Amino acid sequence: MKKALFTVIALLATTLTFAQQALFGGASIVSPEIHPDNTVTFRVVAPKAVVVQVTGDFLPTQKQTVKFGDNEMEIEATGVADLTEKDGVWEYTTPVPVAPEFYTYHFLIDGQRVIDMNNVYVNRDVSTLSSILLIGGGRSDLYKINAVPHGTVAKRWYTQDGMSRRVSVYTPAGYETSNKRYPVFYLLHGMGGDEEAWLTQGRTAQILDNLIAQGKAEPMIVVMTNGNISQEAAPGETSAGFVAPSMNLPKTMEGSFESSFMDVVKFIDANYRTINKKQGRAIAGLSMGGFHSKFISLNNPDTFNYIGLFSAALGVTDPSVSPIYTNEDAKLKTQFSKSPALYWIGIGKTDFLYAANKAYREKLDGLGYKYQYMETDGGHIWRNWRIYLTEFTPLLFK
Amino acid sequence: MKKALFTVIALLATTLTFAQQALFGGASIVSPEIHPDNTVTFRVVAPKAVVVQVTGDFLPTQKQTVKFGDNEMEIEATGVADLTEKDGVWEYTTPVPVAPEFYTYHFLIDGQRVIDMNNVYVNRDVSTLSSILLIGGGRSDLYKINAVPHGTVAKRWYTQDGMSRRVSVYTPAGYETSNKRYPVFYLLHGMGGDEEAWLTQGRTAQILDNLIAQGKAEPMIVVMTNGNISQEAAPGETSAGFVAPSMNLPKTMEGSFESSFMDVVKFIDANYRTINKKQGRAIAGLSMGGFHSKFISLNNPDTFNYIGLFSAALGVTDPSVSPIYTNEDAKLKTQFSKSPALYWIGIGKTDFLYAANKAYREKLDGLGYKYQYMETDGGHIWRNWRIYLTEFTPLLFK
Repeated sequence: MKKALFTVIALLATTLTFAQQALFGGASIVSPEIHPDNTVTFRVVAPKAVVVQVTGDFLPTQKQTVKFGDNEMEIEATGVADLTEKDGVWEYTTPVPVAPEFYTYHFLIDGQRVIDMNNVYVNRDVSTLSSILLIGGGRSDLYKINAVPHGTVAKRWYTQDGMSRRVSVYTPAGYETSNKRYPVFYLLHGMGGDEEAWLTQGRTAQILDNLIAQGKAEPMIVVMTNGNISQEAAPGETSAGFVAPSMNLPKTMEGSFESSFMDVVKFIDANYRTINKKQGRAIAGLSMGGFHSKFISLNNPDTFNYIGLFSAALGVTDPSVSPIYTNEDAKLKTQFSKSPALYWIGIGKTDFLYAANKAYREKLDGLGYKYQYMETDGGHIWRNWRIYLTEFTPLLFK
Repeated sequence: MKKALFTVIALLATTLTFAQQALFGGASIVSPEIHPDNTVTFRVVAPKAVVVQVTGDFLPTQKQTVKFGDNEMEIEATGVADLTEKDGVWEYTTPVPVAPEFYTYHFLIDGQRVIDMNNVYVNRDVSTLSSILLIGGGRSDLYKINAVPHGTVAKRWYTQDGMSRRVSVYTPAGYETSNKRYPVFYLLHGMGGDEEAWLTQGRTAQILDNLIAQGKAEPMIVVMTNGNISQEAAPGETSAGFVAPSMNLPKTMEGSFESSFMDVVKFIDANYRTINKKQGRAIAGLSMGGFHSKFISLNNPDTFNYIGLFSAALGVTDPSVSPIYTNEDAKLKTQFSKSPALYWIGIGKTDFLYAANKAYREKLDGLGYKYQYMETDGGHIWRNWRIYLTEFTPLLFK
């Protein structure tokens, strides 16, 4: 029994407070507990709390009025449910099965946001931490790690716009040993995101592994840049240290990232076995990344053959800010005269950018430029961006 | 001002609860706040709480008596400090500057463990979440990301013992373009750890980047395996999904991992430009990983030239469990007759494995086998394992 004793002592010694909780009287709580019928129970120990709630995108949304300066706006707010207490343990079970999806949630203990401390899977969205809940089934199975060949995910540093910067690169299973050349999909995040966003909330590595294993997508390299030109890398991954993340970064959407984007393409083509021509390149992005994808592809019509605008931040361009934003109509004419293999637009019905996207589609329609379009329920949310990724990727490089 | 408006709307729409907190009346709290003199203030909003405390390894340890079955043990427990409340905001400032180090901490709100929700930097140790605090200066500067060339960190999948498994691989800056061959350092985690532990709490990529940039370590590849043979990968990174991590995994320290370790070496030699011989290989590990390193090197005396036992789990071997644990004395004789370039042992003075390590050293002394030895303050903790890594790595491949 030496081993068992060693295990217990190691447990005690290495993670003392954990051991104290687990071995010395702390309640053993499971949360979230996914039942066989996909109802879910959330639990939290808070013997002295008065009100405990759970909120997350697994709950139906609620209408809520918020003040925005002097104005009031009605918004679709995330739902909130009350937990009930027994012996200091608060609990809530969903009344109906939770639909398959990758969700985030947190508790409100007497109004204060806390993650589920019994769930080690934590999501960061800008400066907000949440707990993760994945319900499998349907499209959601593409977000899971399945028993299929897995690609490699690397975090590398390269130089763009004169700065050392970090990029995430997915290479498909077999890349290292195949000696083949692969097409490249540049996949860009939104405002507040970084080179990790598509991997964490976007589940890109899982989606690519699964689509490729199912024969629905071509094996491809996926390059996830950091589109905040003032940042070397994701917060905490730079020489600035463990700083508080911010939505309001300098030099955002003023042309520097888009203008220097060919630095990324050159780096990738120099360091990976790529199909080094337009037929082998796609670019897409969400929100700000859709804006970036629009203008990068517009200014480099011979570089990208597949363009995806996911809930893109359209209609906000000031051409005086950067040459990359000027002469949009002439550049569009050139881009479409070169017949891109795919121009793809996706937007949620309640997205605050819906009208801007509608206007852009009407402009393309008026000019006779062909595109594919997908409209989904919901707003400016990751659920939609994962859907768009699973729909867009199978169309590439065929 | 279109951009500013877009920013605010995007903020509102994409991270609604965050926006609600930040824009619509939620208190704006900074925690932790590191002051210029390295005192630190911790803050938490909990208007209805009765007692709020902070605990973490930045505080001096305290003696504590705990029950272990029918026995009582006096242990060195992590310190706890009380926060004081004003207007619903609780606060604690350290009375003295916090020494340079990479720390973890959490709050106890009415006795319940919660991380610091104002600090997005979260550490997972087995099933325990904590918040991260890094104080720079001295050796701690090696744990920071500095403005030096950065290596690549990749998560790859390979096959060991017939199972598809995930491994973390650090390749030094310049690897991709140099065409040179590099030595390989196999770096193993402890019980409860996985292929991510040395990168997160171990700060391995930062330590290597910094030591290499300073000319103190040779550029090398560092391979961080998952030493739990029953696991494909770290919790949440396997087809088992977002499961609760466990210290008590099947098939731990029963020989399977050690016996199949040459699968890793062959994979690395086949996929990287390695110095494919004993002179180009090191192996070290902490706790269970030290145990693994001892037996892997013992059974492969022509494979590893540099061996590091960091707080190694010695004195717990049952030779009947696996052939890899048999004939230790004869194998040791063979290993040392082949003159390894370095056999290195490090242990903390209060480590519960101190006596076992002392006995092993006395055995080596009695047999005249040379090793280097480092003794540090403290116990079975990551602070020591980071120190050992910074001391061991500069001795390699010289």
